[in-house]
Amino acid sequence: MSTAAPHSTGRDRLWSVDEHLEDVLTAIRPLEPIELHLLDAQGCVLVEDVTVPVSLPPFDNSSMDGYAVRVADVAGASEEFPAALEVVGDVAAGQAGLLHVGPGQAARIMTGAPLPPGAEAVVPVEWTDGGLGEGPVDAMRARSLAPEGATGHVRVHRPAAARAHVRAQGSDVRAGDRALEAGTVLGPPQIALLAAIGRGTVRVRPRPRVVVLSTGSELVQPGEALADGQIYDSNSFALTAAARDAGAIAYRVGAVADDADTLRSTVEDQLVRADLMVTTGGVSVGAYDVVKEALAHAGDEDEPGSGVEFRKLAMQPGKPQGFGTVGPDHIPLLALPGNPVSSYVSFELFVRPAIRTLMGLTDVHRPTTRATLTADRPLSSPRGRRQFLRGSYADGTVRPVGGAGSHLVAALAHADALIVVPEDAESVEPGAEVEVVLLG
Amino acid sequence: MSTAAPHSTGRDRLWSVDEHLEDVLTAIRPLEPIELHLLDAQGCVLVEDVTVPVSLPPFDNSSMDGYAVRVADVAGASEEFPAALEVVGDVAAGQAGLLHVGPGQAARIMTGAPLPPGAEAVVPVEWTDGGLGEGPVDAMRARSLAPEGATGHVRVHRPAAARAHVRAQGSDVRAGDRALEAGTVLGPPQIALLAAIGRGTVRVRPRPRVVVLSTGSELVQPGEALADGQIYDSNSFALTAAARDAGAIAYRVGAVADDADTLRSTVEDQLVRADLMVTTGGVSVGAYDVVKEALAHAGDEDEPGSGVEFRKLAMQPGKPQGFGTVGPDHIPLLALPGNPVSSYVSFELFVRPAIRTLMGLTDVHRPTTRATLTADRPLSSPRGRRQFLRGSYADGTVRPVGGAGSHLVAALAHADALIVVPEDAESVEPGAEVEVVLLG
Repeated sequence: MSTAAPHSTGRDRLWSVDEHLEDVLTAIRPLEPIELHLLDAQGCVLVEDVTVPVSLPPFDNSSMDGYAVRVADVAGASEEFPAALEVVGDVAAGQAGLLHVGPGQAARIMTGAPLPPGAEAVVPVEWTDGGLGEGPVDAMRARSLAPEGATGHVRVHRPAAARAHVRAQGSDVRAGDRALEAGTVLGPPQIALLAAIGRGTVRVRPRPRVVVLSTGSELVQPGEALADGQIYDSNSFALTAAARDAGAIAYRVGAVADDADTLRSTVEDQLVRADLMVTTGGVSVGAYDVVKEALAHAGDEDEPGSGVEFRKLAMQPGKPQGFGTVGPDHIPLLALPGNPVSSYVSFELFVRPAIRTLMGLTDVHRPTTRATLTADRPLSSPRGRRQFLRGSYADGTVRPVGGAGSHLVAALAHADALIVVPEDAESVEPGAEVEVVLLG
Repeated sequence: MSTAAPHSTGRDRLWSVDEHLEDVLTAIRPLEPIELHLLDAQGCVLVEDVTVPVSLPPFDNSSMDGYAVRVADVAGASEEFPAALEVVGDVAAGQAGLLHVGPGQAARIMTGAPLPPGAEAVVPVEWTDGGLGEGPVDAMRARSLAPEGATGHVRVHRPAAARAHVRAQGSDVRAGDRALEAGTVLGPPQIALLAAIGRGTVRVRPRPRVVVLSTGSELVQPGEALADGQIYDSNSFALTAAARDAGAIAYRVGAVADDADTLRSTVEDQLVRADLMVTTGGVSVGAYDVVKEALAHAGDEDEPGSGVEFRKLAMQPGKPQGFGTVGPDHIPLLALPGNPVSSYVSFELFVRPAIRTLMGLTDVHRPTTRATLTADRPLSSPRGRRQFLRGSYADGTVRPVGGAGSHLVAALAHADALIVVPEDAESVEPGAEVEVVLLG
């Protein structure tokens, strides 16, 4: 495990938020790329430069339903003096060009169908009598109902310039062009392009598999009855949802009792499906802080490079944190504090960027902005610690939601931003400009 | 199927974009709510007002690892003159309050553990000698390694006010409070709150199941070889990805050949897993436009209320469109044009809002903004049609990406916005302000 240069040393050292984050992100490497089917690659980062193998369109084709004609045959045509052409057949999309359009001839052609040899332009069906011998029509009759439409004669009412209503081969992209660059995130339009150039699979970094487990003998599964001294497990639900939201495939293990052996064996058991592990609780200075007890020296002897380091951060909430790796494959593990607000804020600041780094994204952080504080009274904050208060942001202003207590989960559910009070501030006056992390 | 009041009538009627959208959204109703496990409800809309059944925290508890004491016993305590108290045992989180703290006594207590009867405040372990009889300590020793920490005596170095480091019962939310209102979208913090108040399941509108199928005999699955006149199917991939992106569970059927019977039976076959169906291609004026042929009168006789109406929109790209319902359950179906850009733009304008309406969301549209056009030359647009050009938006300006052709899928993959040229404009000068739909 790498560690950023400490400002102080020893177990009393207080890490800054930035030092801890740098330590985490320095140690975490993007996942190895794999070849995935297009739709499985949605939201993933491309790791190859994709080159166009065959031009798009692959052949000259019609942009309209109409008739493929020779320009000279329709020169000067009008509704009063139409050009009468022999219809030599249909060219539907998906048909190879078996027809040839000679002088005085036309082929009925559908949108996307290849321009047949001999033809130079397409006249839309609305510029013709559709072969019915009367005035202009607004559509062809369905082939299945009126097969005679592919034969007989058509009257064309307007001239067409060479290449009119023809999409030229290669007018979208040309063979050899760069379709997409490595690093592109694959959304629907990028998937459209990859499919269009014939790529059924693509090389991307996969979504990381994140295992979330909460610890605490006081935790009860929601929906069950609470006994004295118990509370409901909310962290494993919140962080599983947040991990998915960040782009991961998240597995919720749920609450593990405060027993170091149980915790150690649960972590080992889950390693097989984890690219990243997240625990909550058990990281502070109490006598039952089993995450610390179970993982602080995990693998020190058997597995070089393994082990989780526990530390104090100059941060509120979220002072106690653990980070390191576990198991023979050195799976990264972030051990977050157990208070619901502490664990959620810690997730946003450290786990979300870790997940996005595993995905190979370069933009790993929540957006931040500056906002004017709207509040009834000054915000107070402990000197030397960076405080993250829950807030509601709109139109350049932010107001606090609920108090600073790290157990206030109701307020968290009504916030959409974190208000950042820097280390050197002990209070912030209403009307002051503050930094805001946008969670939405 | 309801239809908005037409500006003109008959089959030549040209619908505006807004009329078609209104027609679609008027006909589509949010899905019936169901009870889902919390994590299955992520991203869904709550349909019940959720009331807090039991206050949070459910009991007075410690916010620190430390000692639960009586205020009088530690009054005036200092490091020089510590208060020596008898340790009567541990109170760990999850333990019911079996201990009683009498005069001259203290209970060692962990964060989140219930304040035992008799105790009035908590002193952090850092304000004590941790029972070791020496100076201040910075942590407790683990219970498993040092069980004697739960007994003996502790010296307290600082006084504590009544209720110090105690989180009061109900200080987060109180029984009977409104936790969340109907209409709330459930993200991670809302899931945290629901779990914290003990809700294992919640009543929400489910994600709609959207079946996507493309039509066209010219379409080949990406990864296979192209024969003459063939192109790759991109629409079914792009729209499946886009449907997921909008919040749906999307099923890609893939390309169906241009045969009305095959299409009709495929649609009927898929109905069982569809809350919404989307087709591409086959809706224009050609002789092989089988979606129109297969669905225009589907169920007219057997199924009152069924049937898909095909119409022309005053829009570019995306002029031909179909909308209606299919099958005995009147599943809504949007039939989009087949050109890749046309189908994608149509999806964004009509299908995405339909999906989000099915989800019960009120904010169903992509955000729009005004931007200054940056371009080398004026944009031209057909009078009487609303044009949607692909663009790249940044910092209040937008520049066109690629041309207007509805086959230009490469440009689409490099755009993040649609530039809207209104019906009454035939050209837009560089520097003019335009409306922009943000796709990102």
